[in-house]
Amino acid sequence: MKILVINTGSSSLKYQLIDMTNENVLAKGVCDRIGLEHSFLKHTRIGSDPVIIEKDLYNHKIAVQEVLSALTDSKTGVISSMSEIAAVGHRIVHGGEKFKESVIIDDNVMAAIKECVELAPLHNPANIIGIEACQQIMPNIPMVAVFDTAFHQTMPPYAYIYALPFEIYEKYRLRKYGFHGTSHKYVAHRAAEMLGRPIEELKIITCHLGNGASICAVKYGKSIETSMGFTPLQGLAMGTRSGTIDPAVISFLMEKEKMSVKDISDFLNKKSGVLGVSGVSSDFRDVQEAAENGNERAKLALDIFCYKVKRFIGDYMGILNGADAVVFTAGIGENNDLVRSMILKDMDFLGIVIDEEKNKVKGKEIDISAPGARVKTLIIPTNEELAIARETKKLLS
Amino acid sequence: MKILVINTGSSSLKYQLIDMTNENVLAKGVCDRIGLEHSFLKHTRIGSDPVIIEKDLYNHKIAVQEVLSALTDSKTGVISSMSEIAAVGHRIVHGGEKFKESVIIDDNVMAAIKECVELAPLHNPANIIGIEACQQIMPNIPMVAVFDTAFHQTMPPYAYIYALPFEIYEKYRLRKYGFHGTSHKYVAHRAAEMLGRPIEELKIITCHLGNGASICAVKYGKSIETSMGFTPLQGLAMGTRSGTIDPAVISFLMEKEKMSVKDISDFLNKKSGVLGVSGVSSDFRDVQEAAENGNERAKLALDIFCYKVKRFIGDYMGILNGADAVVFTAGIGENNDLVRSMILKDMDFLGIVIDEEKNKVKGKEIDISAPGARVKTLIIPTNEELAIARETKKLLS
Repeated sequence: MKILVINTGSSSLKYQLIDMTNENVLAKGVCDRIGLEHSFLKHTRIGSDPVIIEKDLYNHKIAVQEVLSALTDSKTGVISSMSEIAAVGHRIVHGGEKFKESVIIDDNVMAAIKECVELAPLHNPANIIGIEACQQIMPNIPMVAVFDTAFHQTMPPYAYIYALPFEIYEKYRLRKYGFHGTSHKYVAHRAAEMLGRPIEELKIITCHLGNGASICAVKYGKSIETSMGFTPLQGLAMGTRSGTIDPAVISFLMEKEKMSVKDISDFLNKKSGVLGVSGVSSDFRDVQEAAENGNERAKLALDIFCYKVKRFIGDYMGILNGADAVVFTAGIGENNDLVRSMILKDMDFLGIVIDEEKNKVKGKEIDISAPGARVKTLIIPTNEELAIARETKKLLS
Repeated sequence: MKILVINTGSSSLKYQLIDMTNENVLAKGVCDRIGLEHSFLKHTRIGSDPVIIEKDLYNHKIAVQEVLSALTDSKTGVISSMSEIAAVGHRIVHGGEKFKESVIIDDNVMAAIKECVELAPLHNPANIIGIEACQQIMPNIPMVAVFDTAFHQTMPPYAYIYALPFEIYEKYRLRKYGFHGTSHKYVAHRAAEMLGRPIEELKIITCHLGNGASICAVKYGKSIETSMGFTPLQGLAMGTRSGTIDPAVISFLMEKEKMSVKDISDFLNKKSGVLGVSGVSSDFRDVQEAAENGNERAKLALDIFCYKVKRFIGDYMGILNGADAVVFTAGIGENNDLVRSMILKDMDFLGIVIDEEKNKVKGKEIDISAPGARVKTLIIPTNEELAIARETKKLLS
């Protein structure tokens, strides 16, 4: 059984074809600059070098056609025809309160995903275009929607309701949703396997630290709290996002800097975070290099990032009343040993102690706890595509 | 040595006259509705019933004159003449980065307090009017400024710098300041006395829970983190304030509800928090009564309030790497046993366990920890006026 996983952005479309008999990736790639000049498809048949196919990808439908051509091509392909694809799994950013788990896409589901556009105006429209493009080209292949928000739908109301007039929640469904749910769920389950215990009896704190970053408190397999909120802006400082600030900062800046609503949104989402503090880059490797070369603001940006992660770990240790494991995943979480080391320094009171030698790894599934540490610290590379493919397979059977 | 403590609001002026030889309050009171119709002075000579003096208090200068009349009056007074007042201690909300401790007020200090008006446009102007009124009437009596922000000036940069473009900090000194510093400092020192150990070796989490509420991590006598931010809006959910929310909520609401900058500020400061969620009141007694009568939103508002306090306690336990004591103070913290009990439930992993019987007290200095609890839980009534008087006395000697 082969499953195609699709992740559509406004001008991009990432894909992986996974053979679910052994969970091997057969081919993967990305269509980029869709609808723009110089659009192209970068396609990799696993085991071969990537090929760049320059094509005018006027829209997502043409992009999907090109993906299928590449997958079935005699040179770059891995299947003989589209009919070998058992199903398509789509990553959808926002499922609102409607979707508490993955679903097979039908007309009702499409209507409900469209209702969530207001909650994720930058993301859901692209996801919808991706689904519709696939439906047009593969009308008889079942499609599944896997939501970034679904895993967090188990949060209790006192965690997800903001301390705003309640009518605002009733009117707009304005509340904490949380994101990266597919990743948090995947690594939490993987952590349970590594610990050799059922997830139903474990308390796990998962740290998804990438360019976007969030943390999740997973109690007995269910998300009970997460750091992102109504949008992915809340919580940690990120590559270019401010994370949580005093809400009064916004009115202050709008008045002083004559910013519009759009300006302040761009300011907080695209010009802040590690980029804004360091003035160097949103890429941690650049910032780290600058810090090592004596750039004080770069050093400060790293300190701020790590400090905020540390704070959430303590916070979640409190609401979970202890934890069995802390998991690091995603680009920074998997690969940056300095960041992990800075975050976890002086946390022995909470039971967290790592082995600094074991910590010196990149992208490897490993327990880096020091001997005797009461809380296990694990690195687990995330695999959202595989998680989506698994959800898709489960729904088909 | 008698010290007059003054706390000026835009239309009010609270005062206490304290005899510092024994720290006894001699008289206290409030001028209310200054500059408005039906203004009055409520004055209490300790040991006597309060008297209400209806007077046209056109401005703060007249209010100060009335306070001095009441203090020296043959019936209501406690001193024979103004010359018995050794000094006046003024509570000032915002000392910016300039004031790391209390200071004797001179022309330079006044200029610096005026520079902080931009940071606290609702509070510092009233404080300045209060000082100037006192200076005019008591030109030869030394005045001391005690700042709500000063105690938190020991926070490290990674705690107080927001993940915004650094230029914003440089341009406006826009950063986390924190408030309630006089109270946090006072109860932290009192906690050290109760524990019989020097504050220099203690880690203490102080929870100032009143209509405004904030938490502080005090490491070896110094504030290293606090929940309020650039303004008193950040952090916990409060009586009418939202506390921390997703910053993106603001642009969303401004667009959808056609709110201006002023509207959103009022919305978050005056209509949110426990009042907004419950729809009942900002007063915890009303909300609790409604909750007990089955009002679900009132119940939710209490749950949200307590949950956020719990989260900060874990958070600070993490950054302090453990704590010796958690302290509850201010209106709710001192008097509401249900709230304390809800906050501290299931925190034994962090070493916090309370004796539910001991917890059933109001406004009393007491250790409510269960026997053997690794972290002491203390109730300590705050006394900001006494703290201001002590600071004033210290600076005079």
